Amino acid sequence: MGNEPAKRSLAIGLLGAGSVGSSVAAQLVAGHDDLAARAGTNLVLKSVAVSDAKKARPELERLVKSGVLVTVDANAVVSDPAIDVIIEVIGGIEPARTLILAALNSGKSVVTANKALLAQHGGELFEAAANNNVDLYFEAAVAGAIPIIRPLRDSLAGDHVARVMGIVNGTTNYILSQMSNHDISFESALKEAQALGYAEADPTADIEGFDAAAKASILASLAFHSRVSGSDVYREGISGITSDIVRIATEMEHVVKLLAIAELTRDGRIAVRVHPALVPNSHPLAAVRDSFNAVFVEAEAAGELMFYGRGAGGAPTASAVLGDLVAVARHKVIGGLGPKESTYAEREIAPMGQTMTRYLIRLNVNDRPGVLASVANVFSSHSVSIQTVRQDGRGAQAELIVVTHTATDAALAETVAGLRKLDTVRSVESVIRVEGGNF
Amino acid sequence: MGNEPAKRSLAIGLLGAGSVGSSVAAQLVAGHDDLAARAGTNLVLKSVAVSDAKKARPELERLVKSGVLVTVDANAVVSDPAIDVIIEVIGGIEPARTLILAALNSGKSVVTANKALLAQHGGELFEAAANNNVDLYFEAAVAGAIPIIRPLRDSLAGDHVARVMGIVNGTTNYILSQMSNHDISFESALKEAQALGYAEADPTADIEGFDAAAKASILASLAFHSRVSGSDVYREGISGITSDIVRIATEMEHVVKLLAIAELTRDGRIAVRVHPALVPNSHPLAAVRDSFNAVFVEAEAAGELMFYGRGAGGAPTASAVLGDLVAVARHKVIGGLGPKESTYAEREIAPMGQTMTRYLIRLNVNDRPGVLASVANVFSSHSVSIQTVRQDGRGAQAELIVVTHTATDAALAETVAGLRKLDTVRSVESVIRVEGGNF
Repeated sequence: MGNEPAKRSLAIGLLGAGSVGSSVAAQLVAGHDDLAARAGTNLVLKSVAVSDAKKARPELERLVKSGVLVTVDANAVVSDPAIDVIIEVIGGIEPARTLILAALNSGKSVVTANKALLAQHGGELFEAAANNNVDLYFEAAVAGAIPIIRPLRDSLAGDHVARVMGIVNGTTNYILSQMSNHDISFESALKEAQALGYAEADPTADIEGFDAAAKASILASLAFHSRVSGSDVYREGISGITSDIVRIATEMEHVVKLLAIAELTRDGRIAVRVHPALVPNSHPLAAVRDSFNAVFVEAEAAGELMFYGRGAGGAPTASAVLGDLVAVARHKVIGGLGPKESTYAEREIAPMGQTMTRYLIRLNVNDRPGVLASVANVFSSHSVSIQTVRQDGRGAQAELIVVTHTATDAALAETVAGLRKLDTVRSVESVIRVEGGNF
Repeated sequence: MGNEPAKRSLAIGLLGAGSVGSSVAAQLVAGHDDLAARAGTNLVLKSVAVSDAKKARPELERLVKSGVLVTVDANAVVSDPAIDVIIEVIGGIEPARTLILAALNSGKSVVTANKALLAQHGGELFEAAANNNVDLYFEAAVAGAIPIIRPLRDSLAGDHVARVMGIVNGTTNYILSQMSNHDISFESALKEAQALGYAEADPTADIEGFDAAAKASILASLAFHSRVSGSDVYREGISGITSDIVRIATEMEHVVKLLAIAELTRDGRIAVRVHPALVPNSHPLAAVRDSFNAVFVEAEAAGELMFYGRGAGGAPTASAVLGDLVAVARHKVIGGLGPKESTYAEREIAPMGQTMTRYLIRLNVNDRPGVLASVANVFSSHSVSIQTVRQDGRGAQAELIVVTHTATDAALAETVAGLRKLDTVRSVESVIRVEGGNF
């Protein structure tokens, strides 16, 4: 690469013209001179592959007028020998996977925002990039505009990351913020998010944590220099979060957040999970409201770092895509490649049961002497130590809210199972993990 | 570069063995295998230049035993042809400048944490790096461990930054946090900071904003792709901040912060300044407490971003230095260079008088009819519009607290001068700017 003469311009092929794609195209054209100065070469949008050419899109018509080829034939774009770099913003597994592999195998560098694809087929894609001596960049795949890939991969390359904890899904953060701010139910908050376009008609990927799990696997791979896939991630969504839990969180000076957590266990394995959790108000992540994202990193030497910003949306995601495009272009001009995926550490994945966490457990119990003792017995029989207990009498019944100290998730889950069997426990009303306890 | 055979190891020369230097040395040795895997080559610390060889330093003795040369002759280290990369953590202008120039001119890449030097002589140093086809990296120079150089230079390379606003000096943030938390005077908080080692015996560089101004110039250069030096930065320190101002800030749901702000004016010039300001509690920067640093970035497409973490200290700064070292080493191995300083935009610097800001002005006035009218007249005569006025009667006198809408700093300063001349104004008790108003 280092010996090829620097090209005066690089031709770009764009796959996808949805909200991110059209924003990428617009910023590429409008920012041409600045991008050229920063990349050291002109970046010329040559072709855009769309799914439906007949859909009326005024921004695409403008591109066509300025000489850009708009086509439904994505294969023709990736196999066009005149194109140097492919930007993939279609999303989903296929045809994105096949198209990216074809692009890499024909010597094109690729910039993608596709977290689901990287979480599922990252290994295959990174190998293809390495074999073909081209770049595969993906800053936009996690937390939209927030630079988090580069800091983890490059800035912290001389450090040891202990833990990454992020709010990486804007839809769920918006829903949880609305539930907390306006004391409304999950269902109402979801409907509102759908009306505003923050949640999709089928919100499963967001609210059940699949999107966050894909991002968690990418963050874990980078932080711990090992291959981690989406299926390695323990996952719980937020559809079970009730107004009661949100109210109790507020009373206890906490907020409910859907967290993506990747950390090293004591024996050097990777524990990676997505679930709702109570976070103390004093933790920097607690202040991350509405559809904002943030990633909190704990590193051995650097200490605590946080990266905050817009995790989604056409323009912010396009900003991250274009940052990658400039980097990839610069490598083509100067020669050499950017830093690559590194999986040398080959760490194993720890099962969720061995992950250390804390639980808040809300019980509906009979209000009679000895109940607390029987409940406490269950905790101690699983070696789970109790941090606080709050008891509210309600006639013949009482509400018990127990917050534990740190224990393995298996011990905590077994404790809950044991509590369900107690005669004095009428019901286990809710169980939620508690994280970020050092703040 | 691209054609040189990859070296099996790179030899590192370290200039300075203070708290950052000894942490760099320790992390280099302890992290050897991880660093080698990430850099693609062994990184071997060959020589350490110290100012006083006789000073008893057990960590240096350990290095000597493992074969590292410890010397007072820094010139010999930079001119040693066997050394590939120089890390400069001496600080200050000379001899750091001469040593770095010598290293660059002999074909060595350089990693430095020296903000003062970059702010004053950055142009000369970056030119020497470019002429010699080597890297000059400086992530540690601004906000310690927080990755901010790479995000601004690389991640946002496809975007347009409108404004950078940071808390980039931990000493002053600690002092202001203590004043606010414990209702103590500036002098007491400074003494406490000195006792804890957060402030130096001569605290001028920190409390008068010189350190923050150097960092502001580096941030402005990167954000706006133009050369900005420390002397371009308007600067006010925090020694004039009284308990009264801190108390008023609290009452108004604001906090006092020393801000480094770099922004584009409407006509495309760069306005860059360091001064204390009131920041609303709802702004993400308001929650940045104690000695933590954070940089808040507003970009056209990406929107609002914030980067938070430890801005100083041996280990955090060393983390940033080693991240740079891995990048520089990777470039030597793979061939090619990293992204460089870019100053193509060649924007001019706007004078402080033309910068848009808001003032809070506290007046001691005679409590008699017509005073408010005379005060309001002064504001309107300078076309400064008032947002809020608060009046507290105190016998024959009254305290007036006026918060303005946005105006040029010159108009606001002239308004204050006009108020001083009013018979009804007994004194202008304090003047402080207000920033971050959109939160």
